[in-house]
Amino acid sequence: MLSTAADITPHFQERIKHALTVLEQSLPRDSILPVLPKTDVLDVTDIPRACGLLSDWELEITEQYDATELVKQLAARKITAVALLHAFRKRASIAHQLTNCLTELLPEAVGAAEAADDYIAKTGKTLGPLHGLPVSLKEQIAILGHATHAAFVAWIDKKTERDANLVASLKAMGAIVFARTAQPQSFMHLETSNNIYGATVNARNRNLTAGGSSGGETALLSLHATPLGFGGDIGGSIRAPASLNGVWGFKPSVGRISGAGVVVPWPGCDSIHGTLGAFTRSLRDLDLFHTAYSSTQPWLDDPSILPYPVSIQSSAPLRKPLRVGIMKTDGVVRPLPPVQVVLEKIIEKLSVSPLVEVVPFEPLDHDKAWKVITANYWEDGGAKIEQLCAESGEQLRPLTQWMVDQCRTNEAAVGKTTQDRRAARDTFRSRYCEHWNASNVDAVIAPVTPNTAPPLDTSRSWGYTAIWNLMDYPAVAFPASEMVGAYGIDLSTRTYEPTNDTEAYLLKHYNPHVSQNMPVGLQMVTRKWMDSECLAAAALVERILVEGT
Amino acid sequence: MLSTAADITPHFQERIKHALTVLEQSLPRDSILPVLPKTDVLDVTDIPRACGLLSDWELEITEQYDATELVKQLAARKITAVALLHAFRKRASIAHQLTNCLTELLPEAVGAAEAADDYIAKTGKTLGPLHGLPVSLKEQIAILGHATHAAFVAWIDKKTERDANLVASLKAMGAIVFARTAQPQSFMHLETSNNIYGATVNARNRNLTAGGSSGGETALLSLHATPLGFGGDIGGSIRAPASLNGVWGFKPSVGRISGAGVVVPWPGCDSIHGTLGAFTRSLRDLDLFHTAYSSTQPWLDDPSILPYPVSIQSSAPLRKPLRVGIMKTDGVVRPLPPVQVVLEKIIEKLSVSPLVEVVPFEPLDHDKAWKVITANYWEDGGAKIEQLCAESGEQLRPLTQWMVDQCRTNEAAVGKTTQDRRAARDTFRSRYCEHWNASNVDAVIAPVTPNTAPPLDTSRSWGYTAIWNLMDYPAVAFPASEMVGAYGIDLSTRTYEPTNDTEAYLLKHYNPHVSQNMPVGLQMVTRKWMDSECLAAAALVERILVEGT
Repeated sequence: MLSTAADITPHFQERIKHALTVLEQSLPRDSILPVLPKTDVLDVTDIPRACGLLSDWELEITEQYDATELVKQLAARKITAVALLHAFRKRASIAHQLTNCLTELLPEAVGAAEAADDYIAKTGKTLGPLHGLPVSLKEQIAILGHATHAAFVAWIDKKTERDANLVASLKAMGAIVFARTAQPQSFMHLETSNNIYGATVNARNRNLTAGGSSGGETALLSLHATPLGFGGDIGGSIRAPASLNGVWGFKPSVGRISGAGVVVPWPGCDSIHGTLGAFTRSLRDLDLFHTAYSSTQPWLDDPSILPYPVSIQSSAPLRKPLRVGIMKTDGVVRPLPPVQVVLEKIIEKLSVSPLVEVVPFEPLDHDKAWKVITANYWEDGGAKIEQLCAESGEQLRPLTQWMVDQCRTNEAAVGKTTQDRRAARDTFRSRYCEHWNASNVDAVIAPVTPNTAPPLDTSRSWGYTAIWNLMDYPAVAFPASEMVGAYGIDLSTRTYEPTNDTEAYLLKHYNPHVSQNMPVGLQMVTRKWMDSECLAAAALVERILVEGT
Repeated sequence: MLSTAADITPHFQERIKHALTVLEQSLPRDSILPVLPKTDVLDVTDIPRACGLLSDWELEITEQYDATELVKQLAARKITAVALLHAFRKRASIAHQLTNCLTELLPEAVGAAEAADDYIAKTGKTLGPLHGLPVSLKEQIAILGHATHAAFVAWIDKKTERDANLVASLKAMGAIVFARTAQPQSFMHLETSNNIYGATVNARNRNLTAGGSSGGETALLSLHATPLGFGGDIGGSIRAPASLNGVWGFKPSVGRISGAGVVVPWPGCDSIHGTLGAFTRSLRDLDLFHTAYSSTQPWLDDPSILPYPVSIQSSAPLRKPLRVGIMKTDGVVRPLPPVQVVLEKIIEKLSVSPLVEVVPFEPLDHDKAWKVITANYWEDGGAKIEQLCAESGEQLRPLTQWMVDQCRTNEAAVGKTTQDRRAARDTFRSRYCEHWNASNVDAVIAPVTPNTAPPLDTSRSWGYTAIWNLMDYPAVAFPASEMVGAYGIDLSTRTYEPTNDTEAYLLKHYNPHVSQNMPVGLQMVTRKWMDSECLAAAALVERILVEGT
């Protein structure tokens, strides 16, 4: 699936070849599929089970337990870190061969797992609250002793001088960092494709994107090939891939997870901050991570982090009933039928519960929001990205070029100087805050994307996610279609009449027969820094949807 | 004391005349000094008592009680809001005639005080936790229905469309906003002089500055002419005037007090944030305000505010003993003898207490810090300030010009683009955080300024305060010389050999006989967002210094 541009310099072509060799050699020998499925095999979700490379125990341990359960079993010494790691290494390797989601498996993880087992054997104690748990990371989260290229060919050899703060914290919690995953060129795609590794595809339909920019993580997670992963989100890069793969993804407010040591092509860019966040298969796993992470006091090493814990338990008491706004459309692009169906079912199920009061939530100028956030992403108009590409000779990929064009157009439209554009941002934030207060809602449930996973290189609708980056409100994407039983519903009779070019573009890439079996996520949004309340609200809604009470 | 530049346009000269008339007419008729003291009367602190305009009760109520006690008496209906207001209005007017500290007294305060008295009489309840307490504000904190010019002649008629968020909160707490105070042109002086009202002088020695940029507040407070005031601090503008006037001033971390609705000439400027903060005559008054303010949940109307309370009670438990670093010099400019003496006495008194462990705290590259913060103050190099001055024809005052020059020189030195300069900021912050952690201190006590109040137009040493704006660490200035009994100590035998130009400049404006009777403040600093811990640490140190235990 490699699609390097022809004009990458020979030196860098060599370096790419080397990086691919490093990746290939990092895969365990006992995890190599004897025959790769043909490209017309679109749904590969059964292959890890069917391929015969995983033992029954390995299948069980990777499929049946979430991180919370695994951590319990590790602490109780019912499983060893080494055996668990081996199962996930194999499964991640298989996932990679099916979806192209890894940049490397980390060989040092084996030693770390052995050390964890030794420690608990000798002391009877765990190394920390995530003792022995394998964890995967988007490649940009730097790891000491490895190159961290952030998907730029020019940086392919860029050695990391230290672990990113999150990596150090994970190690301090006893976790085993074992896999690094793919990301798109510039990070500014809701897909995952770059000129080093090519595109990461969706395990449920390999014609479609795994989402992005943290799509490597969700490709792994959707194939049960990691129990806990981390990506970044500056416009939807955690929530969109989580939603398109049917898993949980939490974009906290900025100031909750340290981004120190994460490689981005825009150091010092301050107008819109991205944040790291976790991917899991359950809400309680998000709570597990944040509770454990808070206990490490990450604010001591990174003063940009709020010195307050995040966890469901730390939430202020929720209003009873919780007043939940439902946003059916952002007023810019109406969601396609698969998303509409899930929204209808959510409303239906929540409306009968005495625990929540469901009200409509109207969007406020989301078209303006898109202009304001894109005008503020880069202070150099994307010059650094172009410069990095020019250094190696790599082309801007179509989605990168599209985003650079969007940003430049909107920069000019929103304000002459960075100060002007930032003032526009602040004005918008104030207006939206007033709007939220006037709506008198505690939380909002909204679409994450207007569609299910789209065909490769067609993702252009960031509006539903980017609004909450502009506002810096915490938002957790949850696997809504699974929770409300919306998979497989026949969508062919539902019509969608486009009312503008964006909707027409969306419809052009929509196929109801394909979409009806793809996951749809929604997001739960709360006020800025109400991260604990966001998780607590999600827990309440999960309880109503899943347990019916 | 008016010192408008000759080339201010006739239109604006008229408008200035009008503003001065508004100010003059706002002063109560029964507060006008029959004869102003001659300009060679330097210490005017006794005049409010000696002038005969204040009754014994008015003297007692303004001098003997802090805000905490006043609020108690108001709530117990031992005093009325109207009588209290009248006492402070008279005293503020007298203070103004002596130091030139006001921009206006607010006539509507009288009605607000009457309404407060009516309310408590009818309901038996207070309007809120600051029921009936007169409060003064730096003029830039906008008040509905009044012009807010932020000391720019060009904005002298600029009507305010709404109350600043802090004003709305103060009203919601039951406080009576009664006075608006002077600030310097551009806010970027540690003094208080502008082309509308001239210079605000120090009540203890009118040849010297009251400090700035919130010097109007501290001139009031030092003459017992307000029980609670508010200013802003982006480089020392709360702590420096507090220190030079012997009162308390707290610069919290950014994100604690809403700055929404505060007028600044750099909207959208995001690299270094200023913050509002309170001035009081006691530490418990700072706690009173923050406790009350937190109870209004200011984060609901301004999402840039952390949704967590600030108060001594909210502090995490302090380490026992508290490890306090003492910074004797910033390595750029050594403090003059009056500050040295206070530092020595603090160390002496704290060292014998079992409650604290006193250790030296070494500065880290504070010369670099100054370059980095000044390079990041403005993204337009001060162009907006020059433009505003040009609009009316007012000259840049010498201290404004000095600061513009500092910023431009350092911008060029620190980085080519705003992104580069911000990256330098982030790098510095990381290094300093590591340094703080390596020092293993819970709090640092440091000088606020290297000198006592200097002669007008000579203040150029911001380094001791600006470092904590760069770091965004909370810092509370406390009246140290009073607390350790260091007033009046003969300084004439102490030598000071300048080792660089800055020290030579400082020495040139130093007179030990003048300085020995001027207050010296110090500041207590804690980690970012450890605002409650900062107040709690100050409370511990106060207890040791004042009560000896």
